[in-house]
Amino acid sequence: MFNEKMQKLGEERSVIREIFEYGNVRKREIGAGNVFDFSLGNPNVPAPDCVREAIVRLTETLPAETLHGYTSAAGAPEVRKAVADYIGTAFGVPMSADLVYMTCGAAASLTIALNALCEAGDEFVAIAPCFPEYRVFTEAAGGKYAEARTDGSFHLDLAAIDRAVGTRTKGVIVNSPNNPTGAVYSEREIEALAALLERKSKEKGSPIFLIADEPYRELVYGAEAPYLPRYYANTVVCYSFSKSLSLAGERIGYIAVNPACAGARELFSAVCGAGRSLGYVCAPSLFQRVCAECLGKSSDVAVYRKNRDRLYGALTEYGFDCALPQGAFYLFMKSPEPDAKAFCKRAKEYELLLVPSDSFGIEGYVRISYCVSQETIERALPAFERLAKEYFR
Amino acid sequence: MFNEKMQKLGEERSVIREIFEYGNVRKREIGAGNVFDFSLGNPNVPAPDCVREAIVRLTETLPAETLHGYTSAAGAPEVRKAVADYIGTAFGVPMSADLVYMTCGAAASLTIALNALCEAGDEFVAIAPCFPEYRVFTEAAGGKYAEARTDGSFHLDLAAIDRAVGTRTKGVIVNSPNNPTGAVYSEREIEALAALLERKSKEKGSPIFLIADEPYRELVYGAEAPYLPRYYANTVVCYSFSKSLSLAGERIGYIAVNPACAGARELFSAVCGAGRSLGYVCAPSLFQRVCAECLGKSSDVAVYRKNRDRLYGALTEYGFDCALPQGAFYLFMKSPEPDAKAFCKRAKEYELLLVPSDSFGIEGYVRISYCVSQETIERALPAFERLAKEYFR
Repeated sequence: MFNEKMQKLGEERSVIREIFEYGNVRKREIGAGNVFDFSLGNPNVPAPDCVREAIVRLTETLPAETLHGYTSAAGAPEVRKAVADYIGTAFGVPMSADLVYMTCGAAASLTIALNALCEAGDEFVAIAPCFPEYRVFTEAAGGKYAEARTDGSFHLDLAAIDRAVGTRTKGVIVNSPNNPTGAVYSEREIEALAALLERKSKEKGSPIFLIADEPYRELVYGAEAPYLPRYYANTVVCYSFSKSLSLAGERIGYIAVNPACAGARELFSAVCGAGRSLGYVCAPSLFQRVCAECLGKSSDVAVYRKNRDRLYGALTEYGFDCALPQGAFYLFMKSPEPDAKAFCKRAKEYELLLVPSDSFGIEGYVRISYCVSQETIERALPAFERLAKEYFR
Repeated sequence: MFNEKMQKLGEERSVIREIFEYGNVRKREIGAGNVFDFSLGNPNVPAPDCVREAIVRLTETLPAETLHGYTSAAGAPEVRKAVADYIGTAFGVPMSADLVYMTCGAAASLTIALNALCEAGDEFVAIAPCFPEYRVFTEAAGGKYAEARTDGSFHLDLAAIDRAVGTRTKGVIVNSPNNPTGAVYSEREIEALAALLERKSKEKGSPIFLIADEPYRELVYGAEAPYLPRYYANTVVCYSFSKSLSLAGERIGYIAVNPACAGARELFSAVCGAGRSLGYVCAPSLFQRVCAECLGKSSDVAVYRKNRDRLYGALTEYGFDCALPQGAFYLFMKSPEPDAKAFCKRAKEYELLLVPSDSFGIEGYVRISYCVSQETIERALPAFERLAKEYFR
């Protein structure tokens, strides 16, 4: 009676959200302090002070009808200009305000970009393991979804990408720092990827676009994430302030089309059209202005680093096998039994809520979101230790 | 190279937004006070005080990571409950929090509802004149779009609806108070519509759904807009706080599936799935909570009523022909020449920015949004008077 695909999507929910919802119920049952929810990428570090200050100041000084009124569909002109200027200064890439489109967060950035790019028969390749919703968004845009697996250390496997990218490929989705692995691709990797995509575009006879999904850009621990438009002209940046400013619920981000991109103006028109047809009228107006005032600021990344170090240290000590993440706030841990779902079920008995890697496009791992309080980690560690003992005696 | 349909949609923009953007440019050229922009439904009456108070209080008291973090995809449980309780109290319709889905505004409510309902071959009928994006949203959801024209006074023409609704009809979109005419359908009209849809559903052998698009619900001048779920079980309410609380830019509203609706749970799953596939992760979290605290409040409707009376009085005095709007903040005026576009062009010479009715599904009228300052109206009236003299000497 209803759209079957939508109904199924709604019933399944995303695996991650499913666990998150379970966690909320469980917390009500046994108390929030006794559930160790490592499922969702919901930043626990509060937004930096500039956010609260900007909210209060704007609310008390700007006329409400201006502050809360419609902006242009692509965003308030002064906000778009601020974003473009910031990109120019921070990354040395000249960005035009006319090519910046403010969005309702990263998911909106991605669905809009994919709907703008996708023509009938187009294929999009993601570097897996990756965010499971890439498949949902790609298929909803009418595209075919494919994956190229990373190497064993979760870095780019050029040979795998070479095999996955073909004449039907319209775009490649790159997410660095990466969810779920925490890998940050090096400049050398990005240069090699750019060279590969240039060669593939030539073979195809038309451009293959790079979709840079970068909500975790600022969350790096020593490493630096290269800014993709500097290395590859045909890049569309999908940004979100969700993680950098801890505003995940406020739904605010942007799409920036690289001015050097083939058909940049036409692509921007398609972005506007896609936004329109998906029901995005303008990005939330107060937070457009708040974010414009907080460009370049970020939540206290040191807290995540401390969490990473503590968790990585303890888990490896207990016998678990994980790669040290260089960015984002996820630890990608090898499941001690081949079936990660079975392992997650076992972990759940200890009130440890982990996400099995299957939906990220790889089997045998779990994702542990460490954007949680230090207290949660400390209280969870004995549970992890007992869990470890079930496997490594 | 890009999605042609999206590119075209982006280049065209909506006619209304096009005029709005022109107005912004023109204001920079000759000063904001000299451009009389009646194009957009951007509330000029400030949000009620409860909005500012709630923003500041929540920002200063709730932990930032809670306030700005992800809520459940369907919205914060306490917000959904508050909305359901409010609907129960205000309209006497028992509503379940489990069937309330918080959205990023009316456009999101509509695209999500349409994507949830639409199966291959489905048709949706709107009552025209109506919001031009109904067509865009319906076609983007894969549906066929059709219209049933109202009668000469912009009220329901049951015979026309009878002709338009058939066995392929999945839903009928009703918008009362109406954009662009300001008509408010009476209880008798709604009862007749409900009876017609029940008969048509029987003939079809499956339910025809009523999509109640009601962003203007609170903006009525003496009339009362019947609450559609009270009259027709298979109703999905698409609400927005954009106009009632003057929060158009903040993108906040909800979908409420009538508990008495056929397959209500399944439909709600499809709503969740559609939201997910369109990139809606959760509605903006701060404003979810702000709106929950301001339920039942609204901006000062008396201001709009004053504008309506002044504008209606003056324009009819100058010789123009318009219906007195009973709700919303639009005056629908007969174009004094058959071609409304030509008339709008003429009006533009007087810096009067009006929207020709063509895109609303009817020719020969213009829409005048009177959600503008009293000063704008007073300064615009001499321009309207000179314009009238070109036609009625």
